[in-house]
Amino acid sequence: MFTALDYEYMSHALRLAERGLFTTSPNPRVGCVIVNGGKVVGTGWHERAGEPHAEIHALRKAGDLAKGATVYVTLEPCSHHGRTPPCVEALIQAGVCKVVMAMNDPNPHVNGQGKEWLQKAGIAIQAGLLADQAERLNIGFVTRMRHDRPWVRTKIAASFDGRTALKNGKSQWITSEPARRDGHKWRARSCAILTGISSVRKDDPQLTVRYITVSRQPMRIVVDSNLETPLQAKLLQNADTTWIFTAQTSKEKIHRLEDTGAHIVVLPDLAGKVDLKAMMVKLAELGINELLVEAGPVLNGALVTAGLVDEIIFYFAPSLLGNSAQAMLALPEIGDLSEKYDLQISDIRKIGMDVRLIARFMK
Amino acid sequence: MFTALDYEYMSHALRLAERGLFTTSPNPRVGCVIVNGGKVVGTGWHERAGEPHAEIHALRKAGDLAKGATVYVTLEPCSHHGRTPPCVEALIQAGVCKVVMAMNDPNPHVNGQGKEWLQKAGIAIQAGLLADQAERLNIGFVTRMRHDRPWVRTKIAASFDGRTALKNGKSQWITSEPARRDGHKWRARSCAILTGISSVRKDDPQLTVRYITVSRQPMRIVVDSNLETPLQAKLLQNADTTWIFTAQTSKEKIHRLEDTGAHIVVLPDLAGKVDLKAMMVKLAELGINELLVEAGPVLNGALVTAGLVDEIIFYFAPSLLGNSAQAMLALPEIGDLSEKYDLQISDIRKIGMDVRLIARFMK
Repeated sequence: MFTALDYEYMSHALRLAERGLFTTSPNPRVGCVIVNGGKVVGTGWHERAGEPHAEIHALRKAGDLAKGATVYVTLEPCSHHGRTPPCVEALIQAGVCKVVMAMNDPNPHVNGQGKEWLQKAGIAIQAGLLADQAERLNIGFVTRMRHDRPWVRTKIAASFDGRTALKNGKSQWITSEPARRDGHKWRARSCAILTGISSVRKDDPQLTVRYITVSRQPMRIVVDSNLETPLQAKLLQNADTTWIFTAQTSKEKIHRLEDTGAHIVVLPDLAGKVDLKAMMVKLAELGINELLVEAGPVLNGALVTAGLVDEIIFYFAPSLLGNSAQAMLALPEIGDLSEKYDLQISDIRKIGMDVRLIARFMK
Repeated sequence: MFTALDYEYMSHALRLAERGLFTTSPNPRVGCVIVNGGKVVGTGWHERAGEPHAEIHALRKAGDLAKGATVYVTLEPCSHHGRTPPCVEALIQAGVCKVVMAMNDPNPHVNGQGKEWLQKAGIAIQAGLLADQAERLNIGFVTRMRHDRPWVRTKIAASFDGRTALKNGKSQWITSEPARRDGHKWRARSCAILTGISSVRKDDPQLTVRYITVSRQPMRIVVDSNLETPLQAKLLQNADTTWIFTAQTSKEKIHRLEDTGAHIVVLPDLAGKVDLKAMMVKLAELGINELLVEAGPVLNGALVTAGLVDEIIFYFAPSLLGNSAQAMLALPEIGDLSEKYDLQISDIRKIGMDVRLIARFMK
């Protein structure tokens, strides 16, 4: 159905799309390659919400050569007026004769309509080329569109015996610098980073992307049932990108934190804790595609128990801390091995002296 | 210094040596390739203690073609009368003109003497070709000869969060069958498998090689300070290969266990436990090159704390058991990260659904 050249052009488009890894959110990463007479006449990728889509960049470069051309695009062209006019219109006007797309736009307001519109205009359509790779690249966007929640990735740095800190709390540093740098790549591609009040208290993290130059910093989310985030916390500097989810309804406490510029969302569950499921829905509404969790064992465990974690990135340092050191995950006791949480390894590699394992929960 | 052909022949000799992986102990694994006029005229490997060495097999195959030939051998030819006559004599009698060896025999009664004897007979000698690989293949033999103790390898099967059993003790099975099969390869190449009394009580293991056909089973070692091994333990079937190390001096208890055919060694330390260091010396005396430890968190921790573990083979199953499940290693509390036990990863691979990590202690 697809030729070797089709694969080549779509791979090219996917590589272009990847350039938007740290910038497109809340939009998806999209790349486009226009081919006419066996030659690439235009390429483009979406860089930033509000700016032109990949197809528009590629059409501009192709100019008149777009007429009769084949367009390879990693996501179904949009059919709706968003912040920019629909790409479908531009493709029709340019006179392209065929569009090959990796996947349908999972946005329920688009899903298949762009394709239909193009077909009605007499443009040939092929879909599904390298669809897996295209979905993976936009796993957060796809999850948010289909399930109204972000793709949730938990990062855990531990010793080989599964310990994340000494009994006295010391944890800097268990993993080596290359692993910590790698961690910042996952921050950079995330729309938001989530932590818990105990990590704020213990480590006072900034939760910003460092080591990598980025044009936008992810949002910072704190789960803080009692609104105990100290006013001098680093997270409350430039606090307009900080969202605190709480079960605390005291107006006084809320206002004091709001005065720093932070956003407070009151979302209690029946037990007086933050309703984690409702929080994920809210984060999706806020446009969060990929959420990176960097929390302690209690919040990590609560998220796993609530079935809200999709993937864990483990950084294992080749060291042993012993059984008095702190556990990785607080989970309710299991009585039988059939009740264990099962994952599936999707990636193994050595990073510096450490090992990185990526595993997804089996659903 | 060495040519590409030298590397090729020595690699061939190493592959031959590997065939003795499950059989040569307490002898080292040795391979030999004899080359004359650019042709391999004889090959051999040592199969079993008491039987001819690799060189003798290769010389027999080469016959008259050994005259003027170059001999590639993975270990310095022996110069002493052991259970077989010295290989050096046979090489001289056969009229070989050159011997290339990977490494000196670490046996203090040989070390360099075989080489000297050959040189005195006018045979050219080159040493050190692929020495690392040759040492690795005989890591247990080398350690026993140089340091009077076995190479100690600890096998640990755990969940990603470092747990080896549920709180209620259930641990069958955390890892998948391919990982468990792989574990039997490590048993097969070991001279002995060591466990502790709590594992005997909890799992009643056989500690035999299964899944793989072997001509000899490893010895079985139990650390049992109080001689509490139940008489009906599976380890006490065909108990002549079972050695129990204890701190218990009660003649009655000792005799009752000795009646099963098991060997009892009384080696108390000052705290009334088994003196683990002295045990290793004794195991070396018994000819144990590679010792595989399959024990629980307490004995594993005691061996690590005593600095007696060289290498850990971790099988990590992609699952989570939570902090109520059992720890991998009981170690004294650490107050500062600089006191952590550091290892170095030597091998990472996926086995079935699981990950196997091999790491060595930094000395």
